[in-house]
Amino acid sequence: MQERDLARVVAFTDGVMAVAITLLVLNLDVPDVEHGEIGNALVDLLPSFGAYLLSFALIGRYWVIHHNLFEHLRAFDGRLMALNLLFLSLIALIPFATDLYDQYDDAPVAVGVFAATLGLAGLVDWAMTAHIARRGFLHERHRARAHSGIPVALGISLVFFLSVPAAFISVYLAQLLWISVLVIRYPLRRLGRALDSHR
Amino acid sequence: MQERDLARVVAFTDGVMAVAITLLVLNLDVPDVEHGEIGNALVDLLPSFGAYLLSFALIGRYWVIHHNLFEHLRAFDGRLMALNLLFLSLIALIPFATDLYDQYDDAPVAVGVFAATLGLAGLVDWAMTAHIARRGFLHERHRARAHSGIPVALGISLVFFLSVPAAFISVYLAQLLWISVLVIRYPLRRLGRALDSHR
Amino acid sequence: MQERDLARVVAFTDGVMAVAITLLVLNLDVPDVEHGEIGNALVDLLPSFGAYLLSFALIGRYWVIHHNLFEHLRAFDGRLMALNLLFLSLIALIPFATDLYDQYDDAPVAVGVFAATLGLAGLVDWAMTAHIARRGFLHERHRARAHSGIPVALGISLVFFLSVPAAFISVYLAQLLWISVLVIRYPLRRLGRALDSHR
Amino acid sequence: MQERDLARVVAFTDGVMAVAITLLVLNLDVPDVEHGEIGNALVDLLPSFGAYLLSFALIGRYWVIHHNLFEHLRAFDGRLMALNLLFLSLIALIPFATDLYDQYDDAPVAVGVFAATLGLAGLVDWAMTAHIARRGFLHERHRARAHSGIPVALGISLVFFLSVPAAFISVYLAQLLWISVLVIRYPLRRLGRALDSHR
Repeated sequence: MQERDLARVVAFTDGVMAVAITLLVLNLDVPDVEHGEIGNALVDLLPSFGAYLLSFALIGRYWVIHHNLFEHLRAFDGRLMALNLLFLSLIALIPFATDLYDQYDDAPVAVGVFAATLGLAGLVDWAMTAHIARRGFLHERHRARAHSGIPVALGISLVFFLSVPAAFISVYLAQLLWISVLVIRYPLRRLGRALDSHR
Repeated sequence: MQERDLARVVAFTDGVMAVAITLLVLNLDVPDVEHGEIGNALVDLLPSFGAYLLSFALIGRYWVIHHNLFEHLRAFDGRLMALNLLFLSLIALIPFATDLYDQYDDAPVAVGVFAATLGLAGLVDWAMTAHIARRGFLHERHRARAHSGIPVALGISLVFFLSVPAAFISVYLAQLLWISVLVIRYPLRRLGRALDSHR
Repeated sequence: MQERDLARVVAFTDGVMAVAITLLVLNLDVPDVEHGEIGNALVDLLPSFGAYLLSFALIGRYWVIHHNLFEHLRAFDGRLMALNLLFLSLIALIPFATDLYDQYDDAPVAVGVFAATLGLAGLVDWAMTAHIARRGFLHERHRARAHSGIPVALGISLVFFLSVPAAFISVYLAQLLWISVLVIRYPLRRLGRALDSHR
Repeated sequence: MQERDLARVVAFTDGVMAVAITLLVLNLDVPDVEHGEIGNALVDLLPSFGAYLLSFALIGRYWVIHHNLFEHLRAFDGRLMALNLLFLSLIALIPFATDLYDQYDDAPVAVGVFAATLGLAGLVDWAMTAHIARRGFLHERHRARAHSGIPVALGISLVFFLSVPAAFISVYLAQLLWISVLVIRYPLRRLGRALDSHR
């Protein structure tokens, strides 16, 4: 096991996530209409605002999860760094996936690409959490946190992957599942702690 | 109350605000005119330069307020993190709102969206300040600062919300109110200290 | 004099400068030509590559100057923070100014806007250096550095402002002056030290 | 030899690399087609996704190399700072080079520009590694790491430069060489250690 400069890994991660979350605003194009029509054009833009806020909240959610996972890390290896880069390559795709889903919100394929991107990010997050737990990269007293993180990451990932077929039934059902991710952590974390106390 | 890694929260916040403030430049499009006409075209671009500088100063103003608020923080909870993300989602909207207001500066609705975005950011800043004060997240000797921050945040927010109806009377009046935000802090901070000394 | 959290000011500054320097690449548009013509189209793009490298080097130059100035700072006040934000608002304009100068490189007005942006940045840098020296924000043993920084900042600024009228004679003369900024520091720093040793 | 504030150099470097790696997503344009055609349009976009992932992995690879090189640095001079800026100016070009190669993947010139940009970045990385080793900027016990880094940097650079003529034979051959960079480090690092142990 090779220890590395954690601070810089975290700083680079924060940089990529901060840029990705801020690039979401580039999906909001100022309407090009008659000046008297701008009010109506802004109303038409409301779904895009909604997509902006949802993706902002979801990237923010992943950032909080990443923050919690790396907070008490005391070691790092090449595999974790590779997984972290893979995680970031999915997070950096979210501005594209958001724009796609916003423009084709009636096309299940587009909605599915959005869901799959976030689901894969959750899966890589789970792989990082499991790797950290397995290799013992956390201080003894913070082990429970990593274990409780495993069902959180898996659960979030599962919800996103479930929303892919759900999008083919109804796009609204898929959206409902995504929003649930923002609140699902509380029962999942409790589940994680319960599982951990039974070991 | 759960303590968290403050340094990373602050670094992520700085990242988002630094990207948002720099993306403002993307609203300045190089004119596409005959080469002999570029001088006149640049003169026509002056209001856009003004909007750039105003928004740069306002995001900078909010950054200084955030900096002052978090400088002596010694704790953090999930609610403060959620409020901070909400604050950032509004700051990251400012490049869009600036472009909208710059292109439709004669439309009170567009001017109102700009003002409401900044007003909401001020409101969330006030909510963060009040939450920090209430939960005692500051060292004893820095409490006064948080209390003095409450009227500053509320005052700034109020000015922006007042400028929404003001825009329907005159766009210039709204702009005047925004510029006042850049200097209003001095009397407000004094008011905050006065209120605090009466407790 | 009010001390502030210097680390965060520096991190925010680095963030804005890192985003601004990287946004320069957005000025390089992939040519839209027949696939057999891409070689010639890339040759036509060479001046734009040159503008990219020049602006990258100039922002990098200003970053090094800022780094040297803030390296031994031990205090900060509101005025220095305001000057720093003004400095950043000019640095963040450089991607726009570079695109303008690249597209209208035969128009002295456009070349002049580029030069004036960089000249103003140098002037604000000089104001920061002078303010720091005057207020004694440096440790005793690093004072000489601040004093030697004053002619550097003034000299760079002067060269850029001189290049504005020079652009009306010949754009190449203006460009020559800009490139000189990348090497001018050595004689200027020596001058600064000489002036300082005579006090 | 003049010691400098390393932390800030590293933070600025991370900032530029984080922005550059995230800007890669701007090359992925949401297709503008009939809503029923979005599935096929996304399939047509697969090569662009591939280019995105390849460039993300390559910038990530360079980031890890830079991270390893600077991890145990204890000093810095003006030349290393200049080399680092040159390195960053090449990294920041990668989003442009990726877009170029993605749009003209059948044009050896475009493929060659992509390869040359990455090859030059590797060459500058080698120059930094050699400079650090020569000037003794590493702690005694980490010297071996710098020496082992020299063949890694040279080897990566060589592979990219070899892929320039290779692109004129077959673009696929060039791509194969690039992908090899992601795994080549292991034999190269062993070679570096072997060379070092023979001194």
